[in-house]
Amino acid sequence: MGNAALRKKIYVIIHGTDTPAGRRFDVVLLWMILLSTLTVCLESVPTYRRELSLFFRVLEWIFTVAFTLEYILRVYSNPRPLKYVFSFFGIIDFLSVIPTFLAFFIPSFRYIMAIRILRLLRVFRILKLTSYIENAQIIKSALMASMQKITVFIMTVISLVLVIGTLIYVVEGEENGFTSIPQSIYWAIVTITTVGYGDITPKTAVGQVISSLVMLMGYAIIAVPTGIVTVELSKVKVAAPDVDAGPTKVCGNCAREARPTDNYCSNCGHQLVNLK
Amino acid sequence: MGNAALRKKIYVIIHGTDTPAGRRFDVVLLWMILLSTLTVCLESVPTYRRELSLFFRVLEWIFTVAFTLEYILRVYSNPRPLKYVFSFFGIIDFLSVIPTFLAFFIPSFRYIMAIRILRLLRVFRILKLTSYIENAQIIKSALMASMQKITVFIMTVISLVLVIGTLIYVVEGEENGFTSIPQSIYWAIVTITTVGYGDITPKTAVGQVISSLVMLMGYAIIAVPTGIVTVELSKVKVAAPDVDAGPTKVCGNCAREARPTDNYCSNCGHQLVNLK
Amino acid sequence: MGNAALRKKIYVIIHGTDTPAGRRFDVVLLWMILLSTLTVCLESVPTYRRELSLFFRVLEWIFTVAFTLEYILRVYSNPRPLKYVFSFFGIIDFLSVIPTFLAFFIPSFRYIMAIRILRLLRVFRILKLTSYIENAQIIKSALMASMQKITVFIMTVISLVLVIGTLIYVVEGEENGFTSIPQSIYWAIVTITTVGYGDITPKTAVGQVISSLVMLMGYAIIAVPTGIVTVELSKVKVAAPDVDAGPTKVCGNCAREARPTDNYCSNCGHQLVNLK
Amino acid sequence: MGNAALRKKIYVIIHGTDTPAGRRFDVVLLWMILLSTLTVCLESVPTYRRELSLFFRVLEWIFTVAFTLEYILRVYSNPRPLKYVFSFFGIIDFLSVIPTFLAFFIPSFRYIMAIRILRLLRVFRILKLTSYIENAQIIKSALMASMQKITVFIMTVISLVLVIGTLIYVVEGEENGFTSIPQSIYWAIVTITTVGYGDITPKTAVGQVISSLVMLMGYAIIAVPTGIVTVELSKVKVAAPDVDAGPTKVCGNCAREARPTDNYCSNCGHQLVNLK
Repeated sequence: MGNAALRKKIYVIIHGTDTPAGRRFDVVLLWMILLSTLTVCLESVPTYRRELSLFFRVLEWIFTVAFTLEYILRVYSNPRPLKYVFSFFGIIDFLSVIPTFLAFFIPSFRYIMAIRILRLLRVFRILKLTSYIENAQIIKSALMASMQKITVFIMTVISLVLVIGTLIYVVEGEENGFTSIPQSIYWAIVTITTVGYGDITPKTAVGQVISSLVMLMGYAIIAVPTGIVTVELSKVKVAAPDVDAGPTKVCGNCAREARPTDNYCSNCGHQLVNLK
Repeated sequence: MGNAALRKKIYVIIHGTDTPAGRRFDVVLLWMILLSTLTVCLESVPTYRRELSLFFRVLEWIFTVAFTLEYILRVYSNPRPLKYVFSFFGIIDFLSVIPTFLAFFIPSFRYIMAIRILRLLRVFRILKLTSYIENAQIIKSALMASMQKITVFIMTVISLVLVIGTLIYVVEGEENGFTSIPQSIYWAIVTITTVGYGDITPKTAVGQVISSLVMLMGYAIIAVPTGIVTVELSKVKVAAPDVDAGPTKVCGNCAREARPTDNYCSNCGHQLVNLK
Repeated sequence: MGNAALRKKIYVIIHGTDTPAGRRFDVVLLWMILLSTLTVCLESVPTYRRELSLFFRVLEWIFTVAFTLEYILRVYSNPRPLKYVFSFFGIIDFLSVIPTFLAFFIPSFRYIMAIRILRLLRVFRILKLTSYIENAQIIKSALMASMQKITVFIMTVISLVLVIGTLIYVVEGEENGFTSIPQSIYWAIVTITTVGYGDITPKTAVGQVISSLVMLMGYAIIAVPTGIVTVELSKVKVAAPDVDAGPTKVCGNCAREARPTDNYCSNCGHQLVNLK
Repeated sequence: MGNAALRKKIYVIIHGTDTPAGRRFDVVLLWMILLSTLTVCLESVPTYRRELSLFFRVLEWIFTVAFTLEYILRVYSNPRPLKYVFSFFGIIDFLSVIPTFLAFFIPSFRYIMAIRILRLLRVFRILKLTSYIENAQIIKSALMASMQKITVFIMTVISLVLVIGTLIYVVEGEENGFTSIPQSIYWAIVTITTVGYGDITPKTAVGQVISSLVMLMGYAIIAVPTGIVTVELSKVKVAAPDVDAGPTKVCGNCAREARPTDNYCSNCGHQLVNLK
């Protein structure tokens, strides 16, 4: 009984935002995620890695222990632990802590440790509870509505760069840096998206004429996705969420936000714990 | 009689999508096209070409034989074979297989074999039958409606880059990489479309001032095609296609999709075979 | 009398498009303008200039003589020749022929001859009579309507690049290629407009952080002119021009298109010759 | 009494635009600001700094003395001098003159003197009184209204570049110029915003494939902020300002424009001097 009460209390702290403890937990977690992400970034800088080796190792273990503890508590307090473990955020949580433990056994530092950057994605679980979510929903539904049109557009662009890449490969040839069709397609994408690195550039007159046409084409083509998204965005109507309708609830299984009156998650059917 | 029945049956398999055989044919063809395009790309990589020479040659012949067979069946089953042969897709189909046969006689590998990339375009015949076509139509009609405005825009940009190119040629001169007016125009296009390779850049102070003005101009100018397409896209109304009105029919001559009740192609007047 | 009739006849041929002679004159002139522009471009290519020196000189004199003749006829047939001479197109016409004559006396080839590229602008006088004019008008009025907003935008961007340029100059310094504030401002413009030549790039960590912020800023900022122009374009209503209301008339003074019933140019008050 | 009258008179000249003296003051100040900004820029060019050292020093002192005088008059004539001193424009005014005085004592020329570029921002105080302000307001309110959506967008882009940067760091590694995760994130931003310097570019095939995907992603992503701002811009309604309702008044404290009938600033509550 005391056990069930404890689990429920932990669950409320971890998933709720309307109790002082729950809010404090979210703020601390947010900062730890951001700090640990920053640590992963700075640790990769060669000079820092050499000179601050110990400092980073200690910091890393603090974060790992904290996140491991959090992970265990999440599994423990969840009414359906297995479903959580194999959910999107469950896997992200696991991948956030496992590299540090693995680094004991496997020497190749870089490849394993880089996985920890995925910790950053955990920020989105916390942000799900903020007022930003409504705006994210508007953008998301506009993008979803224009998905098919964007797909058609991207497919057309891909066909275009394949043909253009092959053409420039034939025209410029290996002696001007266009060593293969894949490389020439890479150049075509760099050009049509107006990125323009300049690592491979046309040298012959014909190649420069083709490039110019591709650029003007890219200039006109960029209008299409913009037009699509703009039109969809202007159509989107969002039902005003009843923000003051009571304490916020979050599904312990899939982290989907729930209405206070919900008893089951509308996304995964998981039974919701009643916040006091 | 048996001959005519066979021709009709082949025709239905090749052009229809509502019979299991027709759908299977499309799926197999789609994968073969994508795989053979990938092969053409990878074959052009020098290391692969050297080491996997035999593998590529065998693969190439499998694709060529299959596509040649398909081409023969298309000609054979088509009620008006000549019209098919000289249609857009007829020519693409022919160009997809002929380079491999020509490579026997002509040694210059690169130039002939690159034509095979056009195989990719055959994908669009199959895609014509999918749900994407409606969205492609919306984009296409928006682009068509804004064609004249885009043309005016492109013409203005071309005049602009001609004058700007000449100006920078005079200001920077051959000693700074602006070796001729065509090359300087190429630079102007690279700059005004915000591609910015950096293979030719202004070195003098005056040249950098002109460049800055061109960039700011390009920044404001890019708004024009986007605005045009957006406005047209917001106007486009598409009549809902009656997707459930029966089996899909495709013109055997020009690959235009036809309504199930059509007897003649609305595009080229070609008589349509009735899908039993 | 015969003189006045001749002048009127020449005027009609040069300015009208509804007589066969007038249309033929326009087509020939259009091709001569495009060809002479191409000649100016190709002549600047060092190898062509050396090897085809005579060919270009002969071609140049043919164009110059033809354009000079046209210029004399325009002045001669115009009821108010002085006003034509000092009009925009009058000056362009003059600048199109004078460099070739000047090249006799002044040796510095490049600087004088480049002026001839302005010949291209004469194309727009002919295009004024085509169906493109309506679409050009739509774009023009949208740009005009958004002129003030675009100016505010460009001014803000200029202030931004001045402050950013100075900041990066202080941070990166002369040793990393940011040799002066004007050069750093040039870099800021190259970056914020997403051109990105890469001739000057930040080397220090702080400089790269500032660059990243500038790029993300430029990414969001580009939305503003696009939004402005799109909104204005969607507002533009163009009165349908009465295209079939009779022969086209053009002001001999300012090249503005006039309604067939007009007696005086609506732009400059110049009396219009009646196309018999 | 004479003192109070003098203060009021100075105040009217400095803050008003409807008296001839006030307008003349604004025009002179505008030109001095622009000229002094130009001087700061040109002074940073090494050759100019060496050869025109004396010229720049004399010019600098003229501007500094004039701006210092203006600053003293602003403080003196202002009814609430302290509030002005610590307002945004008060600090900018102070930072505009202090570097020249500091340069006496501190030798490190570059870092201190660069602050003077902030003089440019003073232009916006004068521009606040022009007709441009209305358009700036429209853009500003559209940006404000879309602030939350743009923030969501920028946050998503930042998460994206963090993950992409780490991925490319693992794939390409230090030997190809991707020396650390922060540097790789810098590359990801350069790529996704289509700036494309080309100082760091992928060398491996896998890296180029990832780059291509990032570019296509950036190509589609750029549509989002544009769509957001366009939709907001099309919604903005601006109440027509009563431009002819009498002389213009400006708050002496926060430089906010006030209606002629206002007695207190609507922004900071500062009592407004009545323009006789």
